[in-house]
Amino acid sequence: MSEEKRNTLVEDRAQTLPPGDDLAGDAPELASEADAELDAGRIAQVRAAVDAQDREALVAALEPLHAADIADLLEQVSAGERRALVALYAPEIDGDILSELDESIREEVIEALPREVLAEAMRELDTDDVVDILEDLEQGEQAFILGALESEDRAAVEHALNYPEYSAGRLMQSETVSMPQDWTVGQAIDFLRSAEWLPDQFYHVIMVDERHRPTGYVTLGRVLAARRETALADLADESFRTIEATEEEGEVAFLFNKYHLISTPVVDAAGRLVGVITIDDAMNVLDEEHEEDILRLSGVVMEASVTDNALTTARLRLPWLVVNLFTASLSAVVITQFEATIEALVVLAALMPIVASTGGIAGTQSLAVAVRSLATRSLTSANARRVVWRELGAGMLNGVGLAIILGLGGWLIFGDIWLGAVLGMAMICNQIVAALGGVLVPLGMNRLGMDPALASGTFVTTLTDVMGFFAFLGFASIFLL
Amino acid sequence: MSEEKRNTLVEDRAQTLPPGDDLAGDAPELASEADAELDAGRIAQVRAAVDAQDREALVAALEPLHAADIADLLEQVSAGERRALVALYAPEIDGDILSELDESIREEVIEALPREVLAEAMRELDTDDVVDILEDLEQGEQAFILGALESEDRAAVEHALNYPEYSAGRLMQSETVSMPQDWTVGQAIDFLRSAEWLPDQFYHVIMVDERHRPTGYVTLGRVLAARRETALADLADESFRTIEATEEEGEVAFLFNKYHLISTPVVDAAGRLVGVITIDDAMNVLDEEHEEDILRLSGVVMEASVTDNALTTARLRLPWLVVNLFTASLSAVVITQFEATIEALVVLAALMPIVASTGGIAGTQSLAVAVRSLATRSLTSANARRVVWRELGAGMLNGVGLAIILGLGGWLIFGDIWLGAVLGMAMICNQIVAALGGVLVPLGMNRLGMDPALASGTFVTTLTDVMGFFAFLGFASIFLL
Repeated sequence: MSEEKRNTLVEDRAQTLPPGDDLAGDAPELASEADAELDAGRIAQVRAAVDAQDREALVAALEPLHAADIADLLEQVSAGERRALVALYAPEIDGDILSELDESIREEVIEALPREVLAEAMRELDTDDVVDILEDLEQGEQAFILGALESEDRAAVEHALNYPEYSAGRLMQSETVSMPQDWTVGQAIDFLRSAEWLPDQFYHVIMVDERHRPTGYVTLGRVLAARRETALADLADESFRTIEATEEEGEVAFLFNKYHLISTPVVDAAGRLVGVITIDDAMNVLDEEHEEDILRLSGVVMEASVTDNALTTARLRLPWLVVNLFTASLSAVVITQFEATIEALVVLAALMPIVASTGGIAGTQSLAVAVRSLATRSLTSANARRVVWRELGAGMLNGVGLAIILGLGGWLIFGDIWLGAVLGMAMICNQIVAALGGVLVPLGMNRLGMDPALASGTFVTTLTDVMGFFAFLGFASIFLL
Repeated sequence: MSEEKRNTLVEDRAQTLPPGDDLAGDAPELASEADAELDAGRIAQVRAAVDAQDREALVAALEPLHAADIADLLEQVSAGERRALVALYAPEIDGDILSELDESIREEVIEALPREVLAEAMRELDTDDVVDILEDLEQGEQAFILGALESEDRAAVEHALNYPEYSAGRLMQSETVSMPQDWTVGQAIDFLRSAEWLPDQFYHVIMVDERHRPTGYVTLGRVLAARRETALADLADESFRTIEATEEEGEVAFLFNKYHLISTPVVDAAGRLVGVITIDDAMNVLDEEHEEDILRLSGVVMEASVTDNALTTARLRLPWLVVNLFTASLSAVVITQFEATIEALVVLAALMPIVASTGGIAGTQSLAVAVRSLATRSLTSANARRVVWRELGAGMLNGVGLAIILGLGGWLIFGDIWLGAVLGMAMICNQIVAALGGVLVPLGMNRLGMDPALASGTFVTTLTDVMGFFAFLGFASIFLL
């Protein structure tokens, strides 16, 4: 959750006031604040304020913005502008803004903050957000922040840090709303009304047994709509399930998306309630998993960010480029075997990339569908064989279609029916290899417990390059010389 | 929302019973049901039941499964098995299962259902789910289903269908919980307790003015925790914003993810409340948008599904393959210009794909980062210029790095320092073109209002192929002949 505990304080204060009738004035203000956008005008306003070192103007420009927009702004300005902006705005930077910041610049911003501002910012946050920020920091910074937390929060954060990175235990907030499973709606409402502190956002009350193991949950809507004497257990929601704290976060996101979960209790090895994961965090993880898939499929090894500088960017991309340099040399070795053929008919050198490149596209298509299907679990052992046959069929069909176009074209342009035939035959072979490679490589990597998105692209295009050159030059040396 | 109204009926019945103390029996049952999995054992059980035409055994095997798992099962079996399964299970197929089914086979299943089962299934669903199913069906089926709905639901569905496809209006559910903005918590609770019908899942009560325009909302947790005399307006949540019904659904998903929204009121052009979108639907859209990105980047034009047969698969992939056939011919034309050079030094034909292929990988890397950054709005007009410079720098750095490896390799293997130099120079040129092309092509398409994921891949690899061959053969004809 990215909302602040501070909101709860505001709420507490509000509750002690008599019901106000200043609503007409209040509501439009709320609406207009939420509508405040990070547009070109506002960015210009911010830049002017920073240039003039006018703190008041800067605060006025940023105040109406959502923390996510302020974080976006910090990510989009240049490194120099960011330093100037943070220096001027530091006292106003709160936990929400730090939470929203991309990891690539969060550490930079944190280091620029006065210690007491940082301590206050961290105290505002729910424990899951503190964990999220903490896990990327150095030992020294971690110790400082842990020291700044209240003892109960510190214990919760340290507990979460004991779970592996990217696990449900790191993702959950330890703040939960639970009650004995034999309570009635009336008891639940009395408990909630008298609670000193409640999470800012919660969607279910969790029922637990005497060992604090969750046994069901009730949506707040049903609690509100039911009569006081109704047993909570009679309102239990069918969607209830629990997640183990050691579960991988990608699996958590998958479960939320598949089963339309909104918030789900997290349990330890003994089945005891230790926290709750809410769907907004799961949605965030889903988004990050997608980013990883799309970047890995394209040969970018690690997290890349728009704020990276040229050197970092180059470093993140070099590994696969070097790998590709060597795999591409395989193609060169294959072609070398046919030097005599090319010397005899040099037009082959010009035509051979067509077969290889079209194979590369087909392999990439097949690969993308397979990687995506594995990620959504729609490609499983139950249908893998059928999908492979399907790919084989599709490869053959497209191979024949492309062979006809390319073969006819080759025949017409070069006036040699055998050249057309060689182009066509090579195309059919390579399309079949491409379609099969695109599904078999990721399936194989998946079976080996590796991320199928990783490296598949390089393997598959190497395969289609090598096969494209080999088939084309091989058929040519048989039929054309 | 994929939950059924039926749940509400169950709840109503539960409320009229005295608070039960049968909880010990109830809760574990709930837990074990949710834990039922679609594993190999269950699939075997289902297959055996279908083979034996044993309806009771089939129902017993499927009963404990979540609708999403039953839908998965239907997607993963072969077309023949699916027909047999649906024929046997038809009377039990409900709205939830239809909602969860992939569009590619939903129509097939719907056509196999007895009309009264279909009518009953549709009546169970919230209006957003009915709209989701309806929009993919033919006129005749649509009319039948509309006719089967209660008149109020029919009006809501027809209203939603008036909004454009992929708009917030199609995504929202028309069932909302709203109340006058000057109400107190007590009035809200009394209203909710006496309501004849409430949505199965809702997370806020929406405050509206006298023209039914939303002015704020309160989370249910705050309503529950507050005292009866507290004004709702004093509990209004800061995250409040509204979404126009004509807003594009991808934008809706983006807003939910960015601002951590849970449910958001949808308004018509006059600002009046017409529905509400919940985060589970937004998460679904986000997932679909990612699928679109990853497939489009890889040259698959439309929605592709694991249930497609070979012919459909081939048809979806052919268009870009044909386009690529022609763009690849550009490379052939370039190479043809250097036939004399290749004839003089045939090893060039073997080496030229290395430069082209490594450029293709670099272009794909740069492209994936740019497409992803555009999708998350972290690449904007505010930083586009800086990102382009960054890519230029990264391309130069990696170009030099790869040039050194490849140039030294070429020199050592072929004993010709000039061949090494030509390889290196060509590599630097092509890496720079790849890095720039990978960011400029999607930026350009975005500016033209086109999806940057679409076609960028083909354009960029054509660019790197052509540049790779041209630079390598060009330098070779200058320095080696």
